[in-house]
Amino acid sequence: MKSTASPLTHARSSYKPKLPKVLAAPSIVVKKGKATRSISDEAEIQKLFPHTYGQSEVLFASGKGGIKCAKPIHVALVLSGGQAPGGHNVVAGLFDGLKKLNKKNKLTGYLGGPSGLLENKKVEITDSFLVPYRNTGGFDIIGSGRTKLETEEQYEAVIKNLTAADISALVVVGGDDSNTNAAVLGEYFKHRSVPITVVGCPKTIDGDLKNQQVEVSFGFDTATKVYAELTGNVQSDCLSAKKYWHFIKLMGRSASHIALEVALKCQPNITLISEEVAANKWTLSQVTEQMAQVVVSRSVDGKNYGVIVIPEGLLEFIPEMKKLIGTLNDTLAHNAEFEALEYAGAKIEYVKEHLNGENLTAFQSLPPSIQAQLLADRDPHGNVQVSKIDTEKLLIEAIELKLKALKKDGKYSGKFSAQGHFFGYEGRCAAPSNLDADYCYALGFTASYLAAAGLTGYLSSVRDLLKPAAQWRAGGIPLTMMMNLERRHGKDKPVIQKAMVDLGGKPFQTLVKNRARWAARDEYLSPGPIQYWGPTKVADQVPVTLQLERGK
Amino acid sequence: MKSTASPLTHARSSYKPKLPKVLAAPSIVVKKGKATRSISDEAEIQKLFPHTYGQSEVLFASGKGGIKCAKPIHVALVLSGGQAPGGHNVVAGLFDGLKKLNKKNKLTGYLGGPSGLLENKKVEITDSFLVPYRNTGGFDIIGSGRTKLETEEQYEAVIKNLTAADISALVVVGGDDSNTNAAVLGEYFKHRSVPITVVGCPKTIDGDLKNQQVEVSFGFDTATKVYAELTGNVQSDCLSAKKYWHFIKLMGRSASHIALEVALKCQPNITLISEEVAANKWTLSQVTEQMAQVVVSRSVDGKNYGVIVIPEGLLEFIPEMKKLIGTLNDTLAHNAEFEALEYAGAKIEYVKEHLNGENLTAFQSLPPSIQAQLLADRDPHGNVQVSKIDTEKLLIEAIELKLKALKKDGKYSGKFSAQGHFFGYEGRCAAPSNLDADYCYALGFTASYLAAAGLTGYLSSVRDLLKPAAQWRAGGIPLTMMMNLERRHGKDKPVIQKAMVDLGGKPFQTLVKNRARWAARDEYLSPGPIQYWGPTKVADQVPVTLQLERGK
Repeated sequence: MKSTASPLTHARSSYKPKLPKVLAAPSIVVKKGKATRSISDEAEIQKLFPHTYGQSEVLFASGKGGIKCAKPIHVALVLSGGQAPGGHNVVAGLFDGLKKLNKKNKLTGYLGGPSGLLENKKVEITDSFLVPYRNTGGFDIIGSGRTKLETEEQYEAVIKNLTAADISALVVVGGDDSNTNAAVLGEYFKHRSVPITVVGCPKTIDGDLKNQQVEVSFGFDTATKVYAELTGNVQSDCLSAKKYWHFIKLMGRSASHIALEVALKCQPNITLISEEVAANKWTLSQVTEQMAQVVVSRSVDGKNYGVIVIPEGLLEFIPEMKKLIGTLNDTLAHNAEFEALEYAGAKIEYVKEHLNGENLTAFQSLPPSIQAQLLADRDPHGNVQVSKIDTEKLLIEAIELKLKALKKDGKYSGKFSAQGHFFGYEGRCAAPSNLDADYCYALGFTASYLAAAGLTGYLSSVRDLLKPAAQWRAGGIPLTMMMNLERRHGKDKPVIQKAMVDLGGKPFQTLVKNRARWAARDEYLSPGPIQYWGPTKVADQVPVTLQLERGK
Repeated sequence: MKSTASPLTHARSSYKPKLPKVLAAPSIVVKKGKATRSISDEAEIQKLFPHTYGQSEVLFASGKGGIKCAKPIHVALVLSGGQAPGGHNVVAGLFDGLKKLNKKNKLTGYLGGPSGLLENKKVEITDSFLVPYRNTGGFDIIGSGRTKLETEEQYEAVIKNLTAADISALVVVGGDDSNTNAAVLGEYFKHRSVPITVVGCPKTIDGDLKNQQVEVSFGFDTATKVYAELTGNVQSDCLSAKKYWHFIKLMGRSASHIALEVALKCQPNITLISEEVAANKWTLSQVTEQMAQVVVSRSVDGKNYGVIVIPEGLLEFIPEMKKLIGTLNDTLAHNAEFEALEYAGAKIEYVKEHLNGENLTAFQSLPPSIQAQLLADRDPHGNVQVSKIDTEKLLIEAIELKLKALKKDGKYSGKFSAQGHFFGYEGRCAAPSNLDADYCYALGFTASYLAAAGLTGYLSSVRDLLKPAAQWRAGGIPLTMMMNLERRHGKDKPVIQKAMVDLGGKPFQTLVKNRARWAARDEYLSPGPIQYWGPTKVADQVPVTLQLERGK
């Protein structure tokens, strides 16, 4: 429980999220659309979700005889996966929605993520309990966790605990994987005739839970605003000191939405988009060669400085790196001969002797310090841990090597001094922007009505985010509708499809159109810190990518 | 020149800094106080500054027959040293003050710091030129630099360039060293009977240009607010995930004011203050032992997480480390035997063989990776570069080793997983807070009147910052008044005394009073991002340290 508060937290606690008109209506009815289909693999998905496949999209409307809780209900809540700004407002919206339906409705939070459901660790969420958390960042109200519910034993444990507590609905706040889990759980409950409705809520700062139906996941707006604030500040510093190349790595391993959004907000000199690298099958050497060329051409203009934005997951999108990692894992796991080697130098030599062809080339394209890091830091199974590699440092070193060679050939005469940054934890728990505060509150409120209506296997949906909040639409999307089959650990699994950066889409094309100019000139923008008060144009900005995707 | 602007930059450009009433007066007179003395070494300082020593403090007041520019004057401006938020508002205040005195007054900015004075690189600052920079962060309007003016040849070059441009006053915006330089230059001009007034302006995010007369240097408020925003966000993340110990290193090598201010704003579990470490002559092992004990006692409470704030300069305040560095430099410089060693392991063994006593103990107290870093990364003179050591990583590794030993002895059974952060460049060029925007504007405005009044060797002074801006006092402080002699590179030099954290002062004592509780409980505060609009309590906060130092 929060004992004290900063002046901002204190002032912000009285903020009343703007509620869509439809959710403020005294009586809310459900309008059903047409039956739905999964985005692909229809037959397989239908077979896996016999009870929840094909449900209609639903939209809420104001109308008589709407959703009711004549008998009080008890709803369970779990926060799943990484933190995202606005989670506490989902809880607040869910709570207020339930209380609007029936003052006696109850909300219980399960602690520390899905493991709380298994271990039956929980807390009742009351009005006074909620007060210090409204409009604040973090998931600390009940905590979050990454435990996956995958086995029948786990499902049965959840059924046992929820049934004992007389729970009639479970709201799962999470990303694509957690919502896939919610769908599986909802289907399992139906299969077992357990009367518990499962509703999902789209969370992730990464922005990769996005599709025809979901305009943006919550947290993306706030997190990217924090990263853009910092990137803008670093750009100003860069332009004032004219001394360094700043390499800014941004959180998000599976897609480059964050990097793209920050790039469009800040206009740095270079932005790497993993999806483009993968589509073009670029090698690491090709990527760094392109970057080095920008460094060289700027130095010709007397500019030995610049700012580069890098998505955290870059390496895993470079085909040769993926292959190299696989081969290294095969070669080194349980390899006594290799294990016996003590020094990095000897390990590197050993590996060079045991690689060949493309893999050897790829390994040799890595700077020695990264080669050493790759071989030193392996997981308990002996696998190389690509996630532990400091990609920004790798790129700095690789570019230094390129520039050294160019200098030797008389093709470069500038100075190159670099600073690396990683922005991640700084943005996941920021107090939600007005957009996220309102959006999350509406998502939670919507979830309460989906729960009360017994609409299982649905994702809480709030749309038309480019319009004023009063005009937002609210309703539910069948989770199976967003699914396809994917190969995971050698098995076909039904999953909600991750959204990658669309290389044909307007946001990426806007980057493409401008990047040569941004590389050459210093058209840095400084978005500044999130403003909770002030002119609407400042305090109520929506993501640039969303404007480009959904704007007219 | 800035071509475009973010919505915030755009909206903020119309902000009118609050001006002290006295500066808004139609006629401003100079009230002289008593003659002053240097803080120590009076005879020596007086001898070094025969023309400018002992001047009176001056205070501005509204009154008839005040400072005038009957004949237009031409003022030169230079930004010196590291960036600090608000620099552009100093320029704006200076410009507006000069124009108030006489519409025909001119302001010229010398480019890229003091080197611009030597190379005669400059730009005239006009009203339209200034527009996009008002209330923005960065020093990019004319750039900054670290060139020191120290030789007579340099002074003469400055005289030649300024005289050719018909400059009658030079305003130097900088920290303690740059203002010392300004004092020396002002004295030299007097000595040479050159009619150029030199005025200083107190800038530095580090907060170490502070004394009886200077309440705070500009930029400290904004930079610490940015670092506190990020620290608060990381704390929220920490408390939500309950998974990591976050080690946050904050910029500022020479004093720990930033760390102290952020600690008082955020209430992390552990805060290291370099001045305390030095005063107690703690060894690195003692420092990490204390930290490890907090980790252990929190783990007993089931808390395997926490947040630690570390000042960047820590290592240089640990006596044994200072000594070790010195010995290493003596031992390794131009040492062919050592240079021939290729691998880190061999270098470490070599050094161990050649150290003894305290130095050997100190070296052995470092984690192996840091030992390697210390020996690998040496400057062109062969010196160890202590500034390149990742102090946060050093502490993480050292604590890991301590915990391993404790675990072995059955005295610790927790989990320890850590994340390192460094916040520096992210805060130096943020758009100034309302306080810094107002304060800087007033400092620049005051400087224009000091320049017009021919008050050479003065620091622009704006005081009573805890009162509303209208009531702030403005005037000038003789630079020599803040000086003492210090031993630098084997010579006694007159310098403005750096303010270290006062271990007997209220700010540090507030930390001492609370730190056991903050270590045990999670009383994290999340100050959130700087607000330029909104409730006064949020948008117009002054530093906590300033409140404690100067409040009633």
